[in-house]
Amino acid sequence: MPTKTPEKNSDDLEEGVVLRPRFDASGLITCVTSDAASGEVLMVAHMNAEALQKTVESGEAWYFSRSRKALWRKGETSGHVQRVREIRIDCDQDAVWLRVEQAGGAACHTGRRSCFYRAVEPGQTGAKLTFVEAERVFDPDAVYGKHGHAQD
Amino acid sequence: MPTKTPEKNSDDLEEGVVLRPRFDASGLITCVTSDAASGEVLMVAHMNAEALQKTVESGEAWYFSRSRKALWRKGETSGHVQRVREIRIDCDQDAVWLRVEQAGGAACHTGRRSCFYRAVEPGQTGAKLTFVEAERVFDPDAVYGKHGHAQD
Repeated sequence: MPTKTPEKNSDDLEEGVVLRPRFDASGLITCVTSDAASGEVLMVAHMNAEALQKTVESGEAWYFSRSRKALWRKGETSGHVQRVREIRIDCDQDAVWLRVEQAGGAACHTGRRSCFYRAVEPGQTGAKLTFVEAERVFDPDAVYGKHGHAQD
Repeated sequence: MPTKTPEKNSDDLEEGVVLRPRFDASGLITCVTSDAASGEVLMVAHMNAEALQKTVESGEAWYFSRSRKALWRKGETSGHVQRVREIRIDCDQDAVWLRVEQAGGAACHTGRRSCFYRAVEPGQTGAKLTFVEAERVFDPDAVYGKHGHAQD
């Protein structure tokens, strides 16, 4: 059934082997990060060109914080770094997928394993949220301080 | 160790049970979609408020196509719909995670199971791409036509 062969043109966006990340107008690309072992999605964040390059070269996850407008080494404050097992890029090269091993067992600044700890369900008066992975692996106040930036 | 209890304030963005999706300036929210069984990330796309509402209410994935500027029922052309097993939202409610059952076995418009069929690896002269899941489940020309929009 496959009629097209990959790599017909090495710099073809969808079928090539040249990395051509399509950063948006702000210079960012979306990154989804999942646990390499369980497949659980841990977080969605953004990378600029430097963050992507540092991630590829160092084997640890770097992002760009839109709120702090700064390059951000994941786990810099908490020690909960992400060791990168595999980096993937999607068909039109505007999204990155990191498969990581999460140090400390928690990716979310709230202290939970994943940022996606609530499910969206239909309700009588619109959608409602239900906590499905509410348990905290660490206490964010203890890790970041009560007045520290609660994200790393 | 957990010191905070969920639901201290029902409409709190991070700890509440009220859905308050934070759409960006274009009215969109990022959505990552994974295979409910394998955990593989299939695609990253966007939703507007209507797409999110239709997804919650119908149990099938709807997105908003930025290129076509149109609401988009996944699988409308190909029949490869996504049956939603679970919807999650992240801590600050600016990203959605869909866990789906992918009809037809392929989410990508190139005919592959996942849009993330290439790995990014460090090379002598910068990063390079390697095909890791290159096999096509369907022939996109046969499904969409050679001149049809190659995405659904």
